Amino acid sequence: MAFHSHLRRAWLTSNSMLCVGLDPDPARFPEVVHGSVFDFCRAIVDSTAHTVCAYKPQIAFFSAIAAERDLERICTYIREQYPDVLLLLDAKRGDIGSTAEQYAREAFDRYGAQAVTVNPYLGTDSIEPFLRHRDGGVFVLCRTSNPGSGDFQSLDVDGEPLYLHVARRVATEWNEIGDCGLVVGATYPDELRQVRAIVGDLPVLVPGIGAQGGDIDATVAAGHDSTGYGMVISSSRAVLYASQGADFAEAAAAEAEATRDAIRGQTVR
Amino acid sequence: MAFHSHLRRAWLTSNSMLCVGLDPDPARFPEVVHGSVFDFCRAIVDSTAHTVCAYKPQIAFFSAIAAERDLERICTYIREQYPDVLLLLDAKRGDIGSTAEQYAREAFDRYGAQAVTVNPYLGTDSIEPFLRHRDGGVFVLCRTSNPGSGDFQSLDVDGEPLYLHVARRVATEWNEIGDCGLVVGATYPDELRQVRAIVGDLPVLVPGIGAQGGDIDATVAAGHDSTGYGMVISSSRAVLYASQGADFAEAAAAEAEATRDAIRGQTVR
Repeated sequence: MAFHSHLRRAWLTSNSMLCVGLDPDPARFPEVVHGSVFDFCRAIVDSTAHTVCAYKPQIAFFSAIAAERDLERICTYIREQYPDVLLLLDAKRGDIGSTAEQYAREAFDRYGAQAVTVNPYLGTDSIEPFLRHRDGGVFVLCRTSNPGSGDFQSLDVDGEPLYLHVARRVATEWNEIGDCGLVVGATYPDELRQVRAIVGDLPVLVPGIGAQGGDIDATVAAGHDSTGYGMVISSSRAVLYASQGADFAEAAAAEAEATRDAIRGQTVR
Repeated sequence: MAFHSHLRRAWLTSNSMLCVGLDPDPARFPEVVHGSVFDFCRAIVDSTAHTVCAYKPQIAFFSAIAAERDLERICTYIREQYPDVLLLLDAKRGDIGSTAEQYAREAFDRYGAQAVTVNPYLGTDSIEPFLRHRDGGVFVLCRTSNPGSGDFQSLDVDGEPLYLHVARRVATEWNEIGDCGLVVGATYPDELRQVRAIVGDLPVLVPGIGAQGGDIDATVAAGHDSTGYGMVISSSRAVLYASQGADFAEAAAAEAEATRDAIRGQTVR
């Protein structure tokens, strides 16, 4: 199933726009998982699957500790056990076409992701190999959640910030090649509203709630689409490390449920 | 030794600005290596080490085929056998600070790279974790070699293309935090000349000669620094796959020597 169809089904079956980000940091694992990256991630997934439309493994946290095999296993586990949930690999890839083909193989063939985050700086031919992949889609970085995101993204180009040029090109050109979404941080709800105004019902990945401090109410009000869905709102550390005791999975579930409900409470459908 | 010092020593000891890019594609390997990524890369390295200032493994080619262990081995091999040569990991990373820290661990701690390519789109705090790493440095994407590079990089910002804003910020701000370089494709010598004019003697990584069609004479004339060095000029496929027969290592050496000499012939020192 193609990315957009898969995501819409995920929203409807879960009645949730929450995404749990998988950023495994063994230094913060509870003792009961004995340092196992896969066991930790599996416990989080099993305890939160009823609350989410998507999981978002962040590949850097696996690569830093040579845990690619754990990433393969958790991706397979999610696809097999929770096929309605979207599997989104957060990798922020961006390279020339022949190299982008290799990154697309990594994301879609090796890890079986259904969407991957990509960086727009290298332009159209750096994104095409992802879009031409059967069923795979991309979330293109637009206005990111971090403090330095304005350094270049907000530079004025013809009277508009650069990130709106990115948003428009993705919505009007790249989305014609294959299924696209955008990344807009929850820390910038005004910018999220501007982006939504020009991209129609394009899906938007919204990181930055929870540990990064983004406001849920403002985010949902600014970013929903015409159906009341439209967003993949991601929380990582606040869910993963809600407790570092033996009750970590239950604490993660409680935090995820509360976040899902806070999102739902602001959604008008 | 810090990145800039290491690179200057590499230029002087090799009297070369050639970099060989390691983009291993098993479908193009000669039969004699029996599909071994490490054996192929080691043979290329051993046959070309006398011609280069740097090696540039492209991580996507390893990640696509689950060959991280081969990448670890070839990085260790280069550092131990050819310590004067710069080890540059081409990964084009770019993410928020807490994730960038993980990518810096991957590049510098796991693979032992001395520099890594990074994407500027997320701004200062996405680059800082790399720059604060002891001895490690970055090459920041500025004007890339691919056809779509102009889509955003050439957008007009205050009368200048975006890539010159990137160049200036890297030269005047980020290089104060830690050792920086820039990436400017050989396919755009005029842009390379513009960048050199505003960044002083900052090192520039120049991919795009060889298979991508960049012109060596125009590149060297446009991009050298005040000492006659200043560039890391990268060729990948033209060297790696100069022959697909049993003589592949000798053919790679001959291609690398010819490229090094063509670069030298245009260098005025």
